[in-house]
Amino acid sequence: MQNIDRQSCLTLDRDDPLAPLREQFQLPPHLIYLDGNSLGAQPKIALQRASQLVQEEWGHDLIQSWNKAGWFDLPSRLGNLIAPLIGADQNEVVVSDSTSINLFKAIAAALDLQSQSPDASQRKVIVTERSNFPTDIYMAEGITRWLDRGYRIHLIDSPEELSQVINGQTALVMLTHVNYRTGYLHDMAGVTALAHQNGALCLWDLAHSVGAVEVDLRAANADYAVGCCYKYLNGGPGAPAFIWVPERHQASFQQPLTGWWGHAAPFAMQDHFEATTGIRRALCGTQAILSLALIESGLSIFAQTNMAALRKKSLALTDLFIDLVESRCAKHDLALATPRSHTQRGSHVSFAHPHAYAVIQALIERGVVGDYREPSLMRFGFTPLYTRFVDVWDAVEHLRDILDQKSYRSDIQKQAVT
Amino acid sequence: MQNIDRQSCLTLDRDDPLAPLREQFQLPPHLIYLDGNSLGAQPKIALQRASQLVQEEWGHDLIQSWNKAGWFDLPSRLGNLIAPLIGADQNEVVVSDSTSINLFKAIAAALDLQSQSPDASQRKVIVTERSNFPTDIYMAEGITRWLDRGYRIHLIDSPEELSQVINGQTALVMLTHVNYRTGYLHDMAGVTALAHQNGALCLWDLAHSVGAVEVDLRAANADYAVGCCYKYLNGGPGAPAFIWVPERHQASFQQPLTGWWGHAAPFAMQDHFEATTGIRRALCGTQAILSLALIESGLSIFAQTNMAALRKKSLALTDLFIDLVESRCAKHDLALATPRSHTQRGSHVSFAHPHAYAVIQALIERGVVGDYREPSLMRFGFTPLYTRFVDVWDAVEHLRDILDQKSYRSDIQKQAVT
Repeated sequence: MQNIDRQSCLTLDRDDPLAPLREQFQLPPHLIYLDGNSLGAQPKIALQRASQLVQEEWGHDLIQSWNKAGWFDLPSRLGNLIAPLIGADQNEVVVSDSTSINLFKAIAAALDLQSQSPDASQRKVIVTERSNFPTDIYMAEGITRWLDRGYRIHLIDSPEELSQVINGQTALVMLTHVNYRTGYLHDMAGVTALAHQNGALCLWDLAHSVGAVEVDLRAANADYAVGCCYKYLNGGPGAPAFIWVPERHQASFQQPLTGWWGHAAPFAMQDHFEATTGIRRALCGTQAILSLALIESGLSIFAQTNMAALRKKSLALTDLFIDLVESRCAKHDLALATPRSHTQRGSHVSFAHPHAYAVIQALIERGVVGDYREPSLMRFGFTPLYTRFVDVWDAVEHLRDILDQKSYRSDIQKQAVT
Repeated sequence: MQNIDRQSCLTLDRDDPLAPLREQFQLPPHLIYLDGNSLGAQPKIALQRASQLVQEEWGHDLIQSWNKAGWFDLPSRLGNLIAPLIGADQNEVVVSDSTSINLFKAIAAALDLQSQSPDASQRKVIVTERSNFPTDIYMAEGITRWLDRGYRIHLIDSPEELSQVINGQTALVMLTHVNYRTGYLHDMAGVTALAHQNGALCLWDLAHSVGAVEVDLRAANADYAVGCCYKYLNGGPGAPAFIWVPERHQASFQQPLTGWWGHAAPFAMQDHFEATTGIRRALCGTQAILSLALIESGLSIFAQTNMAALRKKSLALTDLFIDLVESRCAKHDLALATPRSHTQRGSHVSFAHPHAYAVIQALIERGVVGDYREPSLMRFGFTPLYTRFVDVWDAVEHLRDILDQKSYRSDIQKQAVT
């Protein structure tokens, strides 16, 4: 990257066809927000929608809103809006519960399906990464311990191990598509094919990829997926998560969280569970409507563009950030933890530094919000809907200045953050 | 009830010490809302709180709000506010996930605890009611089918059967404290004692009792409880639910939904689950913050009164309703489905009628909102925080008029409602 300067970043922004979308977000002036991979920014219309939900739908229409405002159908309606972002068909996605709970459903369904295979007694391993987001591992631990049928979890330390580890004993390969720390992007189609060649099923956690990278679950022939609505989708803090079950697996989809929203006749108030058909088998109980409904505010912005355009800008942003950090902070002890290859990179970039936590705090004090991830990573998310090229320039300048001046408190105590 | 008329109801309202609390709710003028047992009314401050959450905490402070606005602590903080309403100690309640999911956790923990008893192999029955809210039964079915260790569910048809059915084979007695259809109120202390005498554990679903009747889980020595925040607690549509685990059971509380929020060090990002101590063992994944935070709006109104005062008014309202319906609609085919005894009555009243669904629709068209429950019940909830005595009078007058005039469409098609 030759001769890039602040002015050329401003020019990139001027020529960016996605630039107008930033206006649809409520971002504090002067804040450079590089943490949309953790909590997406607030779409302006979310405020009006929240007011309508509280005042009109809850306050005025009260119980009638379950039908009149379509509350009961929200999991399916939102799922159908997410579908085009992940290469899913209509009626294959519902939004409901948390990512952790949806992982439980999908792992349970996968193990149940595998338990019916001829070699079930030999197929007892769940393969995942030690560096997977912890809750993914924990949910797998929860269900395997509970079932007590010899299932075990094999943690790999590098994606390269997948080809050696996946074999005839593998029941399920469970991976997060984009690693939450490093931004490493798995080859979804390749890994899924490898799993299938060995008789295993493949579950993808799209928490750090939906809305950030192009995802084509159907083209990859994936088996199950879950994902988060409050990161790149900008659905609001802790917004309910989604689960994808392709049509081919829906009839066999069995999971133990058999609540009344997954019943064939939820309002018949029967005394025995009978699963509904289709994707609503993945539902359990009554959903948090206010949080659920606000997800649509974020999705309405995605409907104005497409993932190819977003991905193109995302890569341009992360390329620029990597280049600027490596050129302008070259004398400092920074090590890129994120793949350079476009085919292996999500939409966030992490650099290791001996004082990563302290440097991140110093950046935050200057209005540049990234975050810290154990044990030594500074993580910066680039959300193509609202991050500008000039933000990248300014963030790197602050970083350079902090490092040059050593203006960070290296003795600072870590405070827990999500 | 001698010589009661509309004027005397107005007098009751004038003399009601709880009457001013109604002003804190946003209720549509002229609406008589008798469905607060299904979806509680909107506290006026919820609108302001929603705006603050969206605009300031999400929009302005963004990721910082996890700590700055106390989002991560909300499950515990709200739980501690609910505790005094149900006879729980501090640090025994968390608000999180749905009632269905919390039932799953509690049933799982109960079966796990029983599996360690000397007579575990003989103790395989979950006793509950056929008329329990369906999701309670369905969640028990889900976990017993999944565990596949010989657990079975015994459905009783009347509370009188409890004393015959609970025995040395009973692992768990799982009851909804106030029946969602009839309003029948169980003797919590008596049934719990009966369960304990037989070596069984006792799980109470407080969905239709929290905020409506006096509950004293500790005095009853109950084992587990769950409850709903969007009915009498007025927490907003589909608001997350709560779970109570008494201090004596917390160390042994094991459940399979072992998400990162239940980890001993959630931000250490470890690759192995280690349960935290205390009530947060009942947490799983990231929570729907907007829905969660609004629960406090409803709880802040409870903090201005006490359950004894609310219960007294609730019984006066339901007494009045029963008396007026039976006296003023005496010539119609109405049968009280709710116990007359105060010790057996919750805060809603149901009458059976051959055209129950059509009559409820006719009432709703006149602005009197009750609801219908299969197969023939008209259900009316009396929420002592905002229901007036004159509302009871007017509702009965509308009912009488509809029945007298037969001004309901007996051929109406049922539409699903939650």
